[in-house]
Amino acid sequence: MSDKAPGKPLGPIPAGFDTIGGQLAIGGKTAAQLVQQAGGTPLFVYSREIIAATMARLRAAMPARLHINYAIKANSHPDVLRFMADLVDGYDIASGGELEKIMAAGIDASRVSFAGPGKRDWELGSAISAGVTLNLESEGEAERALAIGERLGVTPHLAIRVNPSFDMKGSGMKMGGGAKPFGVDAERVPALGRRIIAAGADWRGLHIYTGSQALSADAIVETQANVLDLADQIASEIGQPLPKLNMGGGFGIPYFHGDEPLDIAAIGAALEERFGDLPASLKDAHLCIELGRYLVGLAGVYLCRIVDRKVSHDEVFLVTDGGLHHQLAASGNFGTVVRRNYPAAIATRFDTPADEVQNVVGCLCTPLDKLSDKGFLPHAEVGDLVAIFCAGAYGASASPAQFLGQGPALEVLV
Amino acid sequence: MSDKAPGKPLGPIPAGFDTIGGQLAIGGKTAAQLVQQAGGTPLFVYSREIIAATMARLRAAMPARLHINYAIKANSHPDVLRFMADLVDGYDIASGGELEKIMAAGIDASRVSFAGPGKRDWELGSAISAGVTLNLESEGEAERALAIGERLGVTPHLAIRVNPSFDMKGSGMKMGGGAKPFGVDAERVPALGRRIIAAGADWRGLHIYTGSQALSADAIVETQANVLDLADQIASEIGQPLPKLNMGGGFGIPYFHGDEPLDIAAIGAALEERFGDLPASLKDAHLCIELGRYLVGLAGVYLCRIVDRKVSHDEVFLVTDGGLHHQLAASGNFGTVVRRNYPAAIATRFDTPADEVQNVVGCLCTPLDKLSDKGFLPHAEVGDLVAIFCAGAYGASASPAQFLGQGPALEVLV
Repeated sequence: MSDKAPGKPLGPIPAGFDTIGGQLAIGGKTAAQLVQQAGGTPLFVYSREIIAATMARLRAAMPARLHINYAIKANSHPDVLRFMADLVDGYDIASGGELEKIMAAGIDASRVSFAGPGKRDWELGSAISAGVTLNLESEGEAERALAIGERLGVTPHLAIRVNPSFDMKGSGMKMGGGAKPFGVDAERVPALGRRIIAAGADWRGLHIYTGSQALSADAIVETQANVLDLADQIASEIGQPLPKLNMGGGFGIPYFHGDEPLDIAAIGAALEERFGDLPASLKDAHLCIELGRYLVGLAGVYLCRIVDRKVSHDEVFLVTDGGLHHQLAASGNFGTVVRRNYPAAIATRFDTPADEVQNVVGCLCTPLDKLSDKGFLPHAEVGDLVAIFCAGAYGASASPAQFLGQGPALEVLV
Repeated sequence: MSDKAPGKPLGPIPAGFDTIGGQLAIGGKTAAQLVQQAGGTPLFVYSREIIAATMARLRAAMPARLHINYAIKANSHPDVLRFMADLVDGYDIASGGELEKIMAAGIDASRVSFAGPGKRDWELGSAISAGVTLNLESEGEAERALAIGERLGVTPHLAIRVNPSFDMKGSGMKMGGGAKPFGVDAERVPALGRRIIAAGADWRGLHIYTGSQALSADAIVETQANVLDLADQIASEIGQPLPKLNMGGGFGIPYFHGDEPLDIAAIGAALEERFGDLPASLKDAHLCIELGRYLVGLAGVYLCRIVDRKVSHDEVFLVTDGGLHHQLAASGNFGTVVRRNYPAAIATRFDTPADEVQNVVGCLCTPLDKLSDKGFLPHAEVGDLVAIFCAGAYGASASPAQFLGQGPALEVLV
């Protein structure tokens, strides 16, 4: 869509979607077929093909020795978890509930690490028993984990999450720098590392997470360099090479008009260069990044059906059976100051040229329930399907599904 | 808390809470007892006593002929729905899911009206069969309702939701004025009203909702006057007196430091005066308001337990087992620009003087998961319970409970 289109711009539709018989098609099936097979709308459709293509491009761009983990908080649908098993090197979880999903999907818990600032004793116990690596968030949590391991008679696999003094520039959400609930302030990490090693735990090194949803390769390159420097410094103070370093994530995806895809080639080249000249403390370390949104975000589409088409004061409203209870971020998170449009389309008229400015709203009784604001789209009628893209991450998992008694959407991996 | 307290101000703790043995007590039980009986934390506790007291004050302030409905979107816990049955005159719902909750609670569907811009055919059919009054949101929805009524052989009870040309000044969320997905633009309502009457439906008048969470009595008084004028004008154009007028809601509660309680006496006095001089079109009308947050918001407390106490760069973080997955609004809705604190307390040290600035955060891996920012509170330790007040409305029902695999909180009415 050009800047000159009427209405407000829509985000860029991700690559990998097809048109069959004029309709949006995913995995060789039209939107209408997918809805029929799933049993109705609203429906999240996740594409194996797009996830696999994303992973293939990422592997090609990154150094071979870099491990790539999947942070399941982005999308923990059981089929997605299982599909990832052959594509990624490990999984990152954030709760005991996510550990249960990992176990239920039949994934080997030794591939899993667990970060999160409020781990309860039962979560620590489940994770230690299963052989999950804990990214410890505080000295207090470390002591609890050691005590629980001893009580269970299991050697815990322990890493320390570091709160670095820097953050990731230009990231959508800064996770480091200054006072934070996450991790241990960098200057206190060496002492805690020595304590963990002395206590006889299986020492799994460091986790340094600095931000998320960055679209600037320069910012990520700079941050990764800082992470490697900090890890080297901490390892030196601990007095032994690091067994493992989780360098965090932060790879963003384009949601909005004007967003450019992240230049992963530049990130991979910079990492390759750094990896060619690692200090002794990191030379043999298991090096990994953890990505959630980047791996699955573009692979998902949210489909909902137009229930009413109405005009109010000369504006057209396409009222759907979906809404912010499934796609909170697309609606603007209960009142973002500057709301911008995710990419959107009329799925059942995917190759029809846009000819009308239309608002796409949800079925909830709140003016915040807007899926697409004044987008220039093909004229749509009751019964048409609307597609909201970029729905593979933090859609179903991060929206208030019970709001106004609506309940969750259907989900399908194709 | 005075303006001179260190840290950032907390919202005002609502009236009606007690102290027993130094702890916050609700319904004669301490926070610790309530948690033990409910089986753990996080736990929403709703107080019968506070709801009843709120209703009693409201009845005393409002004209006797004004009916007061409960909008269950604020809190649809089954025990709350049943408890309301003897306190309120009717219920307002926003989805077929909420209708199922009403039926499950054994509430007479003839007391219920249903508004919502995206009602599906199955929702219209269920509501018509049950005898629920539909607040129609468009001409298209009206035609669907009439057709479904005919097919079912049931006379539908139909009202029209009006999109007025004015909104409620100072309301937290404006629901009228300009182009909106809600209701029928005022100038098109008379024609639709005549159509509904001519079609033989049971004509239930108008629903005019203009905003929510207003703390200014003047704004509500002015809006109610506008609503009555508009209803009279529409009734005159339709050519017969109105059987019923739902004047909407909008009564707000104090969440933040500096918020003053709504002056309901002023609203009641103004309504009394208007009701004494109603035009012929409204003289015999069933007049009601619909309130959700105002009836239950102050009656709820969210209790969570401190899992970790940590210091980062000289700031104290009390990490709890709760978070934005249960109390999204208290956290700032995924990134409000100016985040303000709801009222908060250390429930297990309720009568201990504040002596330390502490952050209360949730257990989620996001810096947005903050329940109370730099509040001046009694020094708290691991195991203490934190109370976040104003949790009776739009807490459990409007938060992303599945985020990061956490699952819902417990809920109890005491």
